[in-house]
Amino acid sequence: MLRIALAQMRVVPGHPVRNTETMREFIADARKQNADLVIFPEMTIPGYLLGDTWEQTAFLEECEACGEEIIAASKGIAVMFGNVAIDWKKKNNDGRARKYNAFFTAKDGRLITPEGMPYPFVVKTLLPNYRAFDDTRHFFSLQKLARELGASTEKLLSPIRLSIRGTAYAVGCLLCEDGWSDDYELSPMKILGEKERPDFFVNISASPFTLGKNAKRHRVFSRRAAEAHAPLLYVNNVGIQNNGKTVYTFDGANAVYDAAGVLRLSGAPYEETTQIFDLETIAGRPPVELPDEPEAAPIFRALSYGVRLFLESIGMQRVVVGVSGGIDSAVAAALYAKILPPENLLLVNMPSRYNSETTKTLARRLAENLGCRYVTVPIQSSVEHTIQQFETATVENLFNGTTERLSVSSFTAENIQARDRSSRVLAGLAAAFGGGFTCNANKAETTVGYSTLYGDQSGFLSALADLWKYQVYDLARYLNEAVYKREAIPQETIGIVPSAELSDAQDVDKGQGDPLCYPYHDFLFRAFVERWQKATPQDILAWYAAGTLEKEIGCAPGLVAKIFPTAKEFIDDLERWWNQFSGLAVAKRIQAPPILAVSRRAFGFDHREAQNGPHYTRKYKAMKAELLGE
Amino acid sequence: MLRIALAQMRVVPGHPVRNTETMREFIADARKQNADLVIFPEMTIPGYLLGDTWEQTAFLEECEACGEEIIAASKGIAVMFGNVAIDWKKKNNDGRARKYNAFFTAKDGRLITPEGMPYPFVVKTLLPNYRAFDDTRHFFSLQKLARELGASTEKLLSPIRLSIRGTAYAVGCLLCEDGWSDDYELSPMKILGEKERPDFFVNISASPFTLGKNAKRHRVFSRRAAEAHAPLLYVNNVGIQNNGKTVYTFDGANAVYDAAGVLRLSGAPYEETTQIFDLETIAGRPPVELPDEPEAAPIFRALSYGVRLFLESIGMQRVVVGVSGGIDSAVAAALYAKILPPENLLLVNMPSRYNSETTKTLARRLAENLGCRYVTVPIQSSVEHTIQQFETATVENLFNGTTERLSVSSFTAENIQARDRSSRVLAGLAAAFGGGFTCNANKAETTVGYSTLYGDQSGFLSALADLWKYQVYDLARYLNEAVYKREAIPQETIGIVPSAELSDAQDVDKGQGDPLCYPYHDFLFRAFVERWQKATPQDILAWYAAGTLEKEIGCAPGLVAKIFPTAKEFIDDLERWWNQFSGLAVAKRIQAPPILAVSRRAFGFDHREAQNGPHYTRKYKAMKAELLGE
Repeated sequence: MLRIALAQMRVVPGHPVRNTETMREFIADARKQNADLVIFPEMTIPGYLLGDTWEQTAFLEECEACGEEIIAASKGIAVMFGNVAIDWKKKNNDGRARKYNAFFTAKDGRLITPEGMPYPFVVKTLLPNYRAFDDTRHFFSLQKLARELGASTEKLLSPIRLSIRGTAYAVGCLLCEDGWSDDYELSPMKILGEKERPDFFVNISASPFTLGKNAKRHRVFSRRAAEAHAPLLYVNNVGIQNNGKTVYTFDGANAVYDAAGVLRLSGAPYEETTQIFDLETIAGRPPVELPDEPEAAPIFRALSYGVRLFLESIGMQRVVVGVSGGIDSAVAAALYAKILPPENLLLVNMPSRYNSETTKTLARRLAENLGCRYVTVPIQSSVEHTIQQFETATVENLFNGTTERLSVSSFTAENIQARDRSSRVLAGLAAAFGGGFTCNANKAETTVGYSTLYGDQSGFLSALADLWKYQVYDLARYLNEAVYKREAIPQETIGIVPSAELSDAQDVDKGQGDPLCYPYHDFLFRAFVERWQKATPQDILAWYAAGTLEKEIGCAPGLVAKIFPTAKEFIDDLERWWNQFSGLAVAKRIQAPPILAVSRRAFGFDHREAQNGPHYTRKYKAMKAELLGE
Repeated sequence: MLRIALAQMRVVPGHPVRNTETMREFIADARKQNADLVIFPEMTIPGYLLGDTWEQTAFLEECEACGEEIIAASKGIAVMFGNVAIDWKKKNNDGRARKYNAFFTAKDGRLITPEGMPYPFVVKTLLPNYRAFDDTRHFFSLQKLARELGASTEKLLSPIRLSIRGTAYAVGCLLCEDGWSDDYELSPMKILGEKERPDFFVNISASPFTLGKNAKRHRVFSRRAAEAHAPLLYVNNVGIQNNGKTVYTFDGANAVYDAAGVLRLSGAPYEETTQIFDLETIAGRPPVELPDEPEAAPIFRALSYGVRLFLESIGMQRVVVGVSGGIDSAVAAALYAKILPPENLLLVNMPSRYNSETTKTLARRLAENLGCRYVTVPIQSSVEHTIQQFETATVENLFNGTTERLSVSSFTAENIQARDRSSRVLAGLAAAFGGGFTCNANKAETTVGYSTLYGDQSGFLSALADLWKYQVYDLARYLNEAVYKREAIPQETIGIVPSAELSDAQDVDKGQGDPLCYPYHDFLFRAFVERWQKATPQDILAWYAAGTLEKEIGCAPGLVAKIFPTAKEFIDDLERWWNQFSGLAVAKRIQAPPILAVSRRAFGFDHREAQNGPHYTRKYKAMKAELLGE
């Protein structure tokens, strides 16, 4: 019998000693429970998303030293863990010391070397280099090592031999992407399986949460285990890690698939926990049923966990939320109210003369429902002071000795209001309150920069900026129904037209709201950003002309013709938002707060962009001319 | 005789049709000058830094179509150019269509296929994946292709055979990094040279300007040409390209090395120009002498060119600069005054009660010297209104029915001033003026976040944020002496103590300035950021203990002992700034404007970072305890 403990451990990136201490606790606990083998996730010691900290020699040395301690701590128990492995005598292609993303197996104080390998560890074969992943920037792959040694990758891929109380086990060791080989020229799992059927496979991962990814992983890993006729153990960390602009939650969700590919054990998402089981009896367990839940459930779990840990990681205990009476700020406030004690949450309403009684009342009611702190700070007099100061200031033209005055347009006045709210009131109040203030932007606004820089585009974290507007509404309903189980967010806030209330033309009582028609634009913008083959105006217009647009982007059938009676209106709208998306919105995103990622493509480090301006292909222009009869 | 034209062309990233049109003009011009061969830089058609635009199918199709047109345009002339090559039937490791960073040679309307290659183009072998380079994220390397084909990389590397009026030339074709192979397992140039001595080598590049890089390239390329006994032609583009957060200038600086490695021709930096020469007589030209100039000269060239093109690329014609009377804003203003007509530049002085007559007078004098527009917008009443509004607002504690007041600390009041200046005045005035406002932060401030978010940390571009404070001073003197040839920046501004003037404790007339001692901290911070092996407190403390710190970081000898009489003072200072650098400053940089890069490591996409908090190794802690006698 082989008793295995899967450590669904919280890894704190960039703090190896802390992670090593946590590992010791997990090892001690596994020993107590008579485990023969304890398995930790990928990069257990350093963490995975570290930016260019991988270039700090002292950090690497510390990771190496911590690894030695874990090896020493493996007396009487086998320990599998992830760490950076450094070959100080060799170079990476950037001229720095050679680094591998490595899988170590220690037992009785010694490392077990895979057959044919020049190192006492398994080297990650497939290095992801898409989305937020920069593995090839820092790590040398097994293929490169094979080339250097004049050997084949196939030869270097060999199982770890583990002897437990006289029984020998061959273990196929994989690191994260190694199990997702469909797009690569080789499959480490298939090679290992064909060489010699391992008794079981272990995949150690540092795999960020993405909506729908667990379901996909179950499909892929279940198939792989069945093909290999061997159990597959998946070990992932919990916690949060970031690449500066994009913050990822890691949900753990450890999983054990039996030799038939049936899921037999699964770790509760986001919990720091251990799964203990006997390998030989795993197929006798009842299959794990995955919960059937609305999309808002995993979104809420990711956001509440992510925000809580982000606050903890930056040492922030108090938060200010500007509340307008609208949906985005209400959802943000209701989310933070589930994370912070009520006295640490301050809601601020900042009316100008354009704010309706309706929304002011709703803002206050929200605060009452959440039972937190509340303050009203009007901005009218400050905004008027600014405009008056600008319009009466004398600009001297020192090149010709004349003077002149500036005038403030209504559009400029709208942005003055937005900046007054965020940079003057919220930032100042947050400092006086001893905390930070939130950015409540959603993904639709963020896509096209429907926001003001240093205004509503600012804050310490954008918790909702990876949610389309319909997902914000779904989350609002879910918060009331499933989380609060009462009307925390006022029903009218969910029903009201979304509006910035920055001018007379934006009167919610008259139903005057945003220029965005979310049931369509949510899906158009998603096609720009989230499709694996990114859609551009050329694709959109081709689908429009073919009558397949709604199906391609996923919005409601019949909607496009309803919103745009003519091709000209459709094209004007498409170009308006494409210009924004690839124009000014890029500039705004460059200066936007970090975004909590939930989708398959979050803005920031996940979706890299250059400020190169909008581009329309000649094919697009030809199609457009044809559609417009030009 | 082979007559060659090197096109030092301006490439506009993300706009293939525009680049193709420019190429036609260069080709026509080369024809007029009887050139047999015209050579364009790497990725001539798409541009090089595009973020994830490489994932847009329509964009790739357009690049392909543009490439076909250039091939068709090669009637009677050979054309070498860079483009993305797409194999739509094969996949990259991200599952998207296969893309190569490719070198095309067209003649008489047809492509020339390198021997042994399955494609009619040369594939980039070495894909840089450090600093701002993400080649491996998008492109498939020659090594991977070789593996897929079951061939060796060596076999696939073969010269292009070019027949010009009956003479056959073997050309060794390289793409940028292929010529910088010292840290790689193979050297494409060496392999090509050993296989069959090519008549000459061509390196097409998209190589961003970095201080000191041209000198290094001359050393490396000169040696390589001499080793290969063959001329080496280096073709690089001009223009600017960006990765969102980091903006790079491309200085062209085309170069022709003869078979002995002597530099015989060189393109003027940042000029869109062509070098025409006869290959056979190149060694008869006088050697090119590289100019001996102060560091501020290439810095000024890079900044003035970069800012001018950045303004052009975002369509901004008018600029507002907040001027304090201090050095950074004065240098920024003097720089912009050389780029914009005087009526398009507005300097703004925003005094509070803490601003001295000295600096107010200097700000005005600067504006007079530059002869642009000037306005004074005091912030005292607005700041007082904000503080008073905060301190009199009633915060309701809705959890217990009590109320309370907030108080504004002097530190909070300093930040309120900074945000009032930037987010209220500068952003509003810029909008009213019809332009943007600059961020004048230098690299020392940016390293440790000695700035206020939405305050002096904001703006549309940080032109000086890759310059250490001493480089800002050098640039100020250079502007007066070499550019303006008069006192444009008032001498007192260069002589005054740097100070934020945000409180009574920061009185310039009493010599009270920044907490940074630039002659030391410039160099300490540079060690954190710019060293290839990044320095951390562990390294710094070890050098301090060994007495080698000043030598290691490059500051003046004797300085450290003068500033820090005791080890405790030294360590307190080190930890203070390391905490800032890896703590709050990261959060500020995430939301900072784009930075114009000049150094070997600029903040942003070049120096990637995670918000993971400061870390001190155990070795550091042990050294510290020993030094402090603990």
